[in-house]
Amino acid sequence: MAKKSILSKRSKFVYNPLEEDDRIAEKLMADGKKILKLNRGDPPHYFPTPKYMIDAYIDALKEGRTGYSTNRGISELREEVSRRYERLYKVKSDPDNDVVITQGVSEGIKFLNAALVNERERVVLFKPYYTVYMPDLQMFGGIPIMENYDEKNNWQIDADSLRRNLGRAAGKGVRPKYMLITNPNNPTGTVLSKRVLEEIVDVANENGIFLISDEIYDEIYYNGAKFTSISQIAKGMPHAILGGASKDYDATGFRIGYILVPGRDKTSGEIKKTMENFANARLSPNVPAQYAFTEGLRNYKEHEKAIRYMVREISSRVNACVDEINKSEYLSTVRPNGAFYIFPRLDLRKLRIKNDKDFVMKLLTEEYIQITRGSGFGAEGHVRIVSLAQKEILVDTVNKINRLCSRYRR
Amino acid sequence: MAKKSILSKRSKFVYNPLEEDDRIAEKLMADGKKILKLNRGDPPHYFPTPKYMIDAYIDALKEGRTGYSTNRGISELREEVSRRYERLYKVKSDPDNDVVITQGVSEGIKFLNAALVNERERVVLFKPYYTVYMPDLQMFGGIPIMENYDEKNNWQIDADSLRRNLGRAAGKGVRPKYMLITNPNNPTGTVLSKRVLEEIVDVANENGIFLISDEIYDEIYYNGAKFTSISQIAKGMPHAILGGASKDYDATGFRIGYILVPGRDKTSGEIKKTMENFANARLSPNVPAQYAFTEGLRNYKEHEKAIRYMVREISSRVNACVDEINKSEYLSTVRPNGAFYIFPRLDLRKLRIKNDKDFVMKLLTEEYIQITRGSGFGAEGHVRIVSLAQKEILVDTVNKINRLCSRYRR
Repeated sequence: MAKKSILSKRSKFVYNPLEEDDRIAEKLMADGKKILKLNRGDPPHYFPTPKYMIDAYIDALKEGRTGYSTNRGISELREEVSRRYERLYKVKSDPDNDVVITQGVSEGIKFLNAALVNERERVVLFKPYYTVYMPDLQMFGGIPIMENYDEKNNWQIDADSLRRNLGRAAGKGVRPKYMLITNPNNPTGTVLSKRVLEEIVDVANENGIFLISDEIYDEIYYNGAKFTSISQIAKGMPHAILGGASKDYDATGFRIGYILVPGRDKTSGEIKKTMENFANARLSPNVPAQYAFTEGLRNYKEHEKAIRYMVREISSRVNACVDEINKSEYLSTVRPNGAFYIFPRLDLRKLRIKNDKDFVMKLLTEEYIQITRGSGFGAEGHVRIVSLAQKEILVDTVNKINRLCSRYRR
Repeated sequence: MAKKSILSKRSKFVYNPLEEDDRIAEKLMADGKKILKLNRGDPPHYFPTPKYMIDAYIDALKEGRTGYSTNRGISELREEVSRRYERLYKVKSDPDNDVVITQGVSEGIKFLNAALVNERERVVLFKPYYTVYMPDLQMFGGIPIMENYDEKNNWQIDADSLRRNLGRAAGKGVRPKYMLITNPNNPTGTVLSKRVLEEIVDVANENGIFLISDEIYDEIYYNGAKFTSISQIAKGMPHAILGGASKDYDATGFRIGYILVPGRDKTSGEIKKTMENFANARLSPNVPAQYAFTEGLRNYKEHEKAIRYMVREISSRVNACVDEINKSEYLSTVRPNGAFYIFPRLDLRKLRIKNDKDFVMKLLTEEYIQITRGSGFGAEGHVRIVSLAQKEILVDTVNKINRLCSRYRR
């Protein structure tokens, strides 16, 4: 073997900074320490996956549904996904051509990047962004144009500033391949307002940019928020919606998601065909889990009960934690109204702690609590707290954060 | 949107020709036709996935193991994979660093292509090849140097010719990034001999080429064949083994595979780290299925019984079908000794049928039997028959093929 590295150039971009701390947490646990893990958005660890879905999963296994399925997913599931959009958003779609079942939203993102992005082409992302958007883009040679969710404006998007920036980019001949929003947002926990979404759709239209909306948390909103799907607003223009079983259906470990491309235009048609080709190149997703998610969607009365309970609990946990955070002299946060993340800003001027990465490391090794550095989402000076644990645990966490801060007070 | 296609250049390479016929088969079925499908290597449709694995799967679901796992796979499964290689091949590996659990071998291949292949770099493949190797390579800009499994020599590899060709390529400054073999082979059903494998390892060593062995069928061999894993021969040089639950463990629909990189050298180390990074960028594979496969590996006494029965049945089915094929005046085949595929050559000179693609289409639309065109594996004039169905069905299939050929006799 030659002395220089065998690795491809793209390998160096594929890196999930959220995982760096995990090896340290593993070591601490191996040493007998108990770590409170508030770093992973993983509802089944707090709310058991609903029994009617588990039962359907078990039935599929007992009925021997353990061979491959159609690569783009079983037709029953594609039909239920299509019905869900008709039921919730009055959006019509063709289950046979508009829906591809994926191995989680992360596969959906990969498919879209692979389908759309040539080496050195641009796409529009917003900061703070869900961590894996970045390596998945860079893996295919893409470069982000980084716009912002605006903290001062409740993490909404400033459409005027977006329009100006894209206009300036267009003036330099830059044509972004897509614009990707996350709604409700990870890591900020914000639901984008209908007005903002309408403006984003307008900007995408004006600039001829394909719009992707990651709506994996679309039934988890509270504190008076109303959720609007891009599929309701972007009718008639090319766009893709990403969703799945993981969050709303409380089944992250199933690894079942979908891409919905409801448009009838030429661009949408090309993308649909490519999504199907990509599905064919990796064979089917896990099969019995597809049946479980089918039942999750079909039995929407049971789902209603499950999601209502979960959202009520989540909102009460998030709010209790936010109240405590906003009492702290070291942290402050916008109050989330969707998903289950809190994304406070650290007042580092008051602390002998260099940055959010250091802060997270100290909290892990001194208080045995694992949260996530904001710089992993492109937003330094922040941390992400997954707010699925019980109220008392979250409140106690803020107390321990305050204790840590007192120790490092400047 | 612009009038030109929005798609990336790579999109046009990602295409599974094996699936083209599926849409036609779907249409025929929608019209009420019963199609005999001998086109997919999917054992659970013929041999139910063993109960002890299904039970473990159900237990995991009942115990609420429905959240994410560690992204590179649960430690129990990585340990059992490591033990399997020690047990079967006396190969030592470190479960924590040398094993990554993947969403089937097809994800393993993607990870390795993404990790190793820059735009326009070369890799060594052998014809006939497993279909998806090609789009997965081209997706990352790679170009194959196409060597051959030699039909005249029972589909073995001619190491002298390989050595000459790679020497010639090296003379032109071509340094292939990897060499990939499939053993036992899909589509030919051949087990590579130990002597041939030793020569391949030598050639890889002489040329400093990373070696990948797809051994997903490594317990399915018969007709006197002995299987040797590359991991037994390539000790001390960088290589990767791909395997999983799909074939030996009769659980294609679980979509659980693994990459094993046992080497302690620098190149192996870099590849291991990159595999882990890639796993982190897509979160974990399906979680309860990982527990099911863990039990599949752990309970090797039950597995022994299951695989012994399956191999006995497969060999008897394959041999009955081969006998019938070699009586035909239109077809002839090398007798397979592994996996469950037969890859006969068509005598097209005798037929008013243009090529293997046409042949397969006529068999589908006139005799309602779906097999696969050899050109989908890079070997025109051949067809692949999946030989998992009962003997009588396979023999009857050959009779119907003969009947089709009589109708189109030149």
